[in-house]
Amino acid sequence: GNHAQGVAHAAQLHGIPATIVMPTDAPAIKKANTRAYGATVVEYDRYTQSREEIADALVRESGAHLIRPYDDVRIIAGQGTVGLEIGQDCADRGIVPDLLLCNASGGGLIAGTAIATRHAWPTLPIWAVEPAGFDDMARSLASGRRERVEPGARSICDALLQVIPGEITFPINRKLLAGGLAISDDEALGAMATAFEFFKLVVEPGGAAALAAALSGRIEIAGRTVVVIASGGNVDPAVFIRALSGDKRADAVS
Amino acid sequence: GNHAQGVAHAAQLHGIPATIVMPTDAPAIKKANTRAYGATVVEYDRYTQSREEIADALVRESGAHLIRPYDDVRIIAGQGTVGLEIGQDCADRGIVPDLLLCNASGGGLIAGTAIATRHAWPTLPIWAVEPAGFDDMARSLASGRRERVEPGARSICDALLQVIPGEITFPINRKLLAGGLAISDDEALGAMATAFEFFKLVVEPGGAAALAAALSGRIEIAGRTVVVIASGGNVDPAVFIRALSGDKRADAVS
Repeated sequence: GNHAQGVAHAAQLHGIPATIVMPTDAPAIKKANTRAYGATVVEYDRYTQSREEIADALVRESGAHLIRPYDDVRIIAGQGTVGLEIGQDCADRGIVPDLLLCNASGGGLIAGTAIATRHAWPTLPIWAVEPAGFDDMARSLASGRRERVEPGARSICDALLQVIPGEITFPINRKLLAGGLAISDDEALGAMATAFEFFKLVVEPGGAAALAAALSGRIEIAGRTVVVIASGGNVDPAVFIRALSGDKRADAVS
Repeated sequence: GNHAQGVAHAAQLHGIPATIVMPTDAPAIKKANTRAYGATVVEYDRYTQSREEIADALVRESGAHLIRPYDDVRIIAGQGTVGLEIGQDCADRGIVPDLLLCNASGGGLIAGTAIATRHAWPTLPIWAVEPAGFDDMARSLASGRRERVEPGARSICDALLQVIPGEITFPINRKLLAGGLAISDDEALGAMATAFEFFKLVVEPGGAAALAAALSGRIEIAGRTVVVIASGGNVDPAVFIRALSGDKRADAVS
């Protein structure tokens, strides 16, 4: 979710020019925030163009260094700091979780988080949450090999639309994850409304996927301590308004 | 903003029944969250009825203990933990603020915060921020005595509609505050949109008042380190949608 801004911000802090390849249908707020860090945003059509080819051409032309969004051990390690923070926060509060839910796309965040939390809790079940139709991770974990998304899949979770698990991330995730869960667009919107109502947080659709899974009823959470990662707040007002307008809030308060 | 829920939650934790007297036009989300903590919510019309009289009658009937929302040294001390957290967070980051902005109504939060921050920064200017029309604190600080709001004033900032500074809070605030600033409803809505866009936080109109003042251009913030308190996220979806729908965002990103 915030990978593009993170790279743009890091480049700005070091005085290095940055070019970010981003889908045309990414949230306008994400493009604006990335540009606000001084980066150039190159847009592409995620359904007809190859991000990898565009990035490779830019690298050839400019001599730039390519930073992939997940298939890079440094990115995985950086995103794994989420797991370190979870470990520290739980230790501070004397919490031992029964379950960890994390959104997954290329699988970098969940791979890093799984490595980091494994130290504290070697047997903690960690589940990947994906949008329905983009459950390549769940299917890959089940089959033991990297499965691909079927063409034509669509989801409101714009940050979770990778079509195949990463080459570097998948072996890690295959070893460390319990499995995968899929959530619908309506469930993602409902989880955004729940985060608004109870946690006072702005979460983008893909960032709310793990919370949506927790609220879905399809995984047992009663009486269990569940850690839910909410990652990414790049959501355009129109989409947030859609989340708040629907009757999709979890029925948690009478 | 969250005073009602705080009291309701504390009572629930201690197994004590709680009755909260709350205006009928308080956000539905605030009433629901207060009831979710097991409290009874007694509603009243803030423009025609006296909260004090209703509470006094309840105390006489039930023998309950009355907890006022600001005119109680224990409430002021509790809200002053916001100031302690500001002091600790700034110390951790090596920050010395030039200015502190805090929403004000009865004046308990800002009184406690002013007492707490005074230890770290004896000369830090602290400004109270109120809705236009409810600038009784600003006028009272200017005149040196407790001034009252003019009848008929209205504001979207439902948590900041006290009509006169507190008896206990005012002597504290008179001694410790630099003065008062007023913000419009549109400025409050614009600050909510800014908090959504840049901080990924859900803030209610009154909770966004201090941020609105910082963004208003009416107080010099360029090159200064400004601490802004954003207190309260009790906002109904319809009001939040209004904030996101308007063209009221601060012009902070191109």
